[in-house]
Amino acid sequence: MRIVVLAGGIGGARFLRGLKAAAPDADITVIGNTGDDIHLFGLKVCPDLDTVMYTLGGGINEDQGWGRTGETFRVKEELAAYGVGPEWFGLGDRDFATHIVRTQMLGAGYPLSAVTEALCDRWQPGVRLLPMSDDRVETHVAIEDETGERKAVHFQEYWVRLRASVPALAVVPVGAEQAKPAPGVLEALAAADVILFPPSNPVVSIGTILAVPGIREAVAEAAAPVVGLSPIVGNAPVRGMADKVLEAVGVESTAAAVAKYYGGAERRPVEGGAGLLDGWLVDEVDADTVADVEAAGIRCRAVPLMMTDVDATAAMARTALALAAEVRK
Amino acid sequence: MRIVVLAGGIGGARFLRGLKAAAPDADITVIGNTGDDIHLFGLKVCPDLDTVMYTLGGGINEDQGWGRTGETFRVKEELAAYGVGPEWFGLGDRDFATHIVRTQMLGAGYPLSAVTEALCDRWQPGVRLLPMSDDRVETHVAIEDETGERKAVHFQEYWVRLRASVPALAVVPVGAEQAKPAPGVLEALAAADVILFPPSNPVVSIGTILAVPGIREAVAEAAAPVVGLSPIVGNAPVRGMADKVLEAVGVESTAAAVAKYYGGAERRPVEGGAGLLDGWLVDEVDADTVADVEAAGIRCRAVPLMMTDVDATAAMARTALALAAEVRK
Repeated sequence: MRIVVLAGGIGGARFLRGLKAAAPDADITVIGNTGDDIHLFGLKVCPDLDTVMYTLGGGINEDQGWGRTGETFRVKEELAAYGVGPEWFGLGDRDFATHIVRTQMLGAGYPLSAVTEALCDRWQPGVRLLPMSDDRVETHVAIEDETGERKAVHFQEYWVRLRASVPALAVVPVGAEQAKPAPGVLEALAAADVILFPPSNPVVSIGTILAVPGIREAVAEAAAPVVGLSPIVGNAPVRGMADKVLEAVGVESTAAAVAKYYGGAERRPVEGGAGLLDGWLVDEVDADTVADVEAAGIRCRAVPLMMTDVDATAAMARTALALAAEVRK
Repeated sequence: MRIVVLAGGIGGARFLRGLKAAAPDADITVIGNTGDDIHLFGLKVCPDLDTVMYTLGGGINEDQGWGRTGETFRVKEELAAYGVGPEWFGLGDRDFATHIVRTQMLGAGYPLSAVTEALCDRWQPGVRLLPMSDDRVETHVAIEDETGERKAVHFQEYWVRLRASVPALAVVPVGAEQAKPAPGVLEALAAADVILFPPSNPVVSIGTILAVPGIREAVAEAAAPVVGLSPIVGNAPVRGMADKVLEAVGVESTAAAVAKYYGGAERRPVEGGAGLLDGWLVDEVDADTVADVEAAGIRCRAVPLMMTDVDATAAMARTALALAAEVRK
């Protein structure tokens, strides 16, 4: 079974760990978000790709969900001693090595997809990890600063430094319009038996991947059923601050609203592009929204959606695969 | 008093520490060798500049004479886990930060001289540290490999990986002919009251600096007396493997031969360019060579030349300054 997963960072990575447990023999291709990539200290940092790679490769800091286990921060302390920041982005010494290798390879002319493959040679994540694009895409968030001036900040600055504490007026994946899907992305979608949207951020993670011209269309036109898992449980994000960026795109923080934001595959085309979802999982606490989602042409089930451990996550993945089988076109 | 010192790495840095103690009120400009600079992991590493900066700024690993004190090697271990080398060059985590800052600034368009000034803002070495040139110069060493093929290796590979264990057939400062002295270098030499050659390597340290067009001439034409200290004591290098590279330029490993290699200022021009030295210090054990050096037109004194501690080194520096006063033109 060929499964293609569009993944952001922590939520996507944890879901993938459950999916691997649920479908150990499946051939899994992950299309990773690179819109939150950032250049820090002259190095190319790919937080979402690395979170997937470290999580599936056994190198993740489990407590925080990103970064390496057993980290130290000597390099960062020294950079601060030189007065070189930002200090709000916590790169550890082990993590620095990944960015150094990546930057060196990019500088030597390798595309990000080849670099990611080389890094995965070490981590053996057990999936094929593809960046959504080899082209630079950088998600910016429009905010109002203290003086009321509107300005754009890098997504990481909004998310990590500001902790989404001010309203996101707009979310713009800068460069996405000119970006091309990385080699293998469209082919994987076309050949997939199942396409899954994990409970990742629908705007800045999966939304950014879908913003690369050709990817949304490839998902919509794929022969495979498309099933997603709601990142919103009981009207709040399970993790992170998805509500903040949902507000920016005018979408309520509810499981049903996110499903309609992706759009039902049977009702394509919807406003803003083709609808994508054949199936949608909401948490049990949102059971009352199932009818609403189904009315939008999306088969919906209410099941436990908390990724408390690998077993619970594997159960979610199995349910998603079962729903995919049920809605197979 | 304006003192200009042409310095390599460990020997130059330790001499400078003694010089600062001997002449605390002097205005010291250091022209640093950059021929042993190397690009590692995509980062620009300047071993000699950093050794001077760390030594005078209190950050040096005293035991080994290079690198930072209290180092850890997490980044290097991780790079090795990615299969990325070389492993023979021991960059520590703290040291990495210096190279990251430098590389980032160079990438942003700052010349090496401006980057060095910025790094010294933190270290406050108490001297003005100038790279010999903002242009890339890379010392290569010609050797015979196992099969008898002649090939060129980077100086660091010869020195650190091979530990100078094979004969150096030639030493070539690649790029030196096209290099220009860094801003301030010629001006400092012209305005100097004293010019000193510390007991640094006469071929790959001071020789490389002198290979930048304009610098040898500026030293030869300077109004200031030029006094050097022999790196060879009792026919062997005090430290390092200077004899190996002296052989490559056909110079015996003796204090007198090195003095004649630099050339006596009174006998300019000598073969290979203008003679440079007005005065030369040899160690007491080489007292019998004083007459030979003086016959070459170089005032010579035999004094203790072992830099065993700062006091001993300060005494050497005081003697060098006294000899400079004596030979002042």
